[in-house]
Amino acid sequence: MNGLVPGFTGSTLDRADLIRNDPEQLAALTASLSARLIKLDGLDPVIGPDGLLGWTSLADAEGELIFLGLQDGKPRFAEVRPGIPDGFSRSPAIFHILDALPPGEAGTYAAARSLIDWHMRHGFCARCGSATAMFRGGWGRQCLGCSAEHFPRVDPVVIMLAEHEGRVLVGRQPRYPAGRYSALAGFLEPGESIEEAVARELHEEAGVRVSQVHYVASQPWPFPSSLMIACIAHVEDDALTIDYTELEDAIWVTRDEVEASLGGDPGAPFLSPPHYAIAHTLFRRWLAGG
Amino acid sequence: MNGLVPGFTGSTLDRADLIRNDPEQLAALTASLSARLIKLDGLDPVIGPDGLLGWTSLADAEGELIFLGLQDGKPRFAEVRPGIPDGFSRSPAIFHILDALPPGEAGTYAAARSLIDWHMRHGFCARCGSATAMFRGGWGRQCLGCSAEHFPRVDPVVIMLAEHEGRVLVGRQPRYPAGRYSALAGFLEPGESIEEAVARELHEEAGVRVSQVHYVASQPWPFPSSLMIACIAHVEDDALTIDYTELEDAIWVTRDEVEASLGGDPGAPFLSPPHYAIAHTLFRRWLAGG
Repeated sequence: MNGLVPGFTGSTLDRADLIRNDPEQLAALTASLSARLIKLDGLDPVIGPDGLLGWTSLADAEGELIFLGLQDGKPRFAEVRPGIPDGFSRSPAIFHILDALPPGEAGTYAAARSLIDWHMRHGFCARCGSATAMFRGGWGRQCLGCSAEHFPRVDPVVIMLAEHEGRVLVGRQPRYPAGRYSALAGFLEPGESIEEAVARELHEEAGVRVSQVHYVASQPWPFPSSLMIACIAHVEDDALTIDYTELEDAIWVTRDEVEASLGGDPGAPFLSPPHYAIAHTLFRRWLAGG
Repeated sequence: MNGLVPGFTGSTLDRADLIRNDPEQLAALTASLSARLIKLDGLDPVIGPDGLLGWTSLADAEGELIFLGLQDGKPRFAEVRPGIPDGFSRSPAIFHILDALPPGEAGTYAAARSLIDWHMRHGFCARCGSATAMFRGGWGRQCLGCSAEHFPRVDPVVIMLAEHEGRVLVGRQPRYPAGRYSALAGFLEPGESIEEAVARELHEEAGVRVSQVHYVASQPWPFPSSLMIACIAHVEDDALTIDYTELEDAIWVTRDEVEASLGGDPGAPFLSPPHYAIAHTLFRRWLAGG
């Protein structure tokens, strides 16, 4: 884990999307003795003795099944079990688990977590208010009243380093652990491109004007279901006007300071984001030249 | 319009997001004589004699107002008027209008159209089925039953050219106009990165295996509310296994052939996508070297 590859990527799951729409094949896979169910505690993964995701038999399922895909030749499922907390609340345990989980395993988990959470929050039709039911192997819900089809939501988020004369801008949200600073971020809105969202967010939160935006990398972020899009943005002027409703603080940091933070140096000016967060990858890629 | 800048980008609208959460300021802007309402026919823009978006006075509004932002010093609004068709259906007129509309104007229109359509399809809470009401100046809805907050949806879509030894792969969907081929595309799913979605879609639709993915550009696409993420993907082997449930055909084309198509040459092997579609930008950027 050198941090150049984004967390939550590299899953070896084959989503086998054609099977989702084939009820007969889906039934056969569900009945198969090789079928496996992802083991969760609430929405957190249960890790096996090998340090990887734990899986169990479908006999243990109590809820509705989502077909995740095929992995190592085995059909993989997740279940929507009533009564689990929604994905907006994160347990304190999850970040310790993610610290130790390989990125590909975290990717498979991310798909399961985001899907389960989406089903739990979409029992009703946004269009007519009637109840909805799962269809397509768990990759959608259909309204029992008006027949409208609903599909799992993915929310694009831009996350970016503003760059000015060899320094980058990092900010601190009030909810961060003590000492933590990270790249600025925000939800992309209807009617804008990635580059426009980056420019808007940097202007809104820090008052800087962007001249150029470069895409760097992306990752899924399952809290509850974002697509993180990481960019570097060049700015002409380093004067800041901080929006204190969003940020507690924002500072310009040098390469040496970022290097010290990523290395865990106790004298570093800030505590870096964890390796599985794409802000970490963004810092590493910036240090590596872009 | 040289096609290198994506369509629907370059809007000069200032979204002024702080105003959305300030009911007093919002009320003052709504009462202001300088306030303007975007003129629509159903969901299509009404174009003024100057070839730009038409705007009228708020006195003409019959529905609920969305605060789009500030432009040329004037507050700009859109209205959710009951009874207009939803954004999944596109009128035949819209593509002719977009042919002539400058990209920045199309960007402002895209924000309005996607937001209006989202409100029309989200009158009820997906969580509990109760009615919802607009809040935050139209940038969200809140449930009148359980108080859950809902925000406008943006669906990330990957659109990509597979590249192999100087040729790129273009495909044809049954619903395309006669002769049209374009870049392959598909919705990004929960739990995957942009790069993974590109690799999955190319494998699902054309049977090719991707070795490297490069991001090229992005644009909003308001039918009903996508974020188009355009990439080029290198493949090692050009053998195709086409998924005929998705595509009618897929072919490899050379630089000269793409150039002829973009130039409207009657002898070209395919009809190119319109300039406001990011597939067009993707072709132009590929010809320009990536």
